[in-house]
Amino acid sequence: MNISHIEHLGIAVENLEESIKYYEDVLGLKCYSIEEVVDQKVKTAFFLVGTTKIELLESTSPDGPIGKFIEKKGPGIHHLAFAVPNATEALKIAEDRGVRLIDKESRKGAEGLNIGFLHPKSTLGVLTELCSKE
Amino acid sequence: MNISHIEHLGIAVENLEESIKYYEDVLGLKCYSIEEVVDQKVKTAFFLVGTTKIELLESTSPDGPIGKFIEKKGPGIHHLAFAVPNATEALKIAEDRGVRLIDKESRKGAEGLNIGFLHPKSTLGVLTELCSKE
Repeated sequence: MNISHIEHLGIAVENLEESIKYYEDVLGLKCYSIEEVVDQKVKTAFFLVGTTKIELLESTSPDGPIGKFIEKKGPGIHHLAFAVPNATEALKIAEDRGVRLIDKESRKGAEGLNIGFLHPKSTLGVLTELCSKE
Repeated sequence: MNISHIEHLGIAVENLEESIKYYEDVLGLKCYSIEEVVDQKVKTAFFLVGTTKIELLESTSPDGPIGKFIEKKGPGIHHLAFAVPNATEALKIAEDRGVRLIDKESRKGAEGLNIGFLHPKSTLGVLTELCSKE
């Protein structure tokens, strides 16, 4: 698996523009990128905090994963993403160790990374992403 | 405020021993410390992932903050802690910027750090901790 660090933390927000203001004006962080990930039905804003990114996620549709999450739980931390050398291999290792996968194979996510999700039923309630540049 | 990195991520778990097994045997991380924080009614286990710690939190009492959190939301990510040079000063800055505080002054937390919490109603639903060595 060889997790090197927390690549990012995904945070579900109701309004991206207002949330960027909070992260910039209150916490003093700097948004360096805004990106839409069409197949995930989200608009994202990125901040770098040390070696970890904070990825704010606003749903572009009520039936997208973030829209459903906010409807059920309200805004807040949505997922935890670990950096690994190879996401596809790490997904296989997790499956071999008994973890239920959401993604059997890695796919392209925000910032061009290869990503895959583990199911929160197998990860003690934490929606967990594995991601790699390769 | 001068946030340097994510100091730790607090994750509420139902059973510390089983959860340590998942983080070690599945994710391949290494628990380096187990500590009880009596006034928070929690037993904690720490893992280092890059420069950020993961702090697993098991409640030692149903009426403690983690016990209540799990009863309401189930196990999962509980709070996000930013490292700052001085937690007391950072709390004052946050208050000046309109944030509602849980802790008006910093207090001692796990690992001897000075810590203080911002109220999730002011932080877009993310229970946020500021912590410093000083």
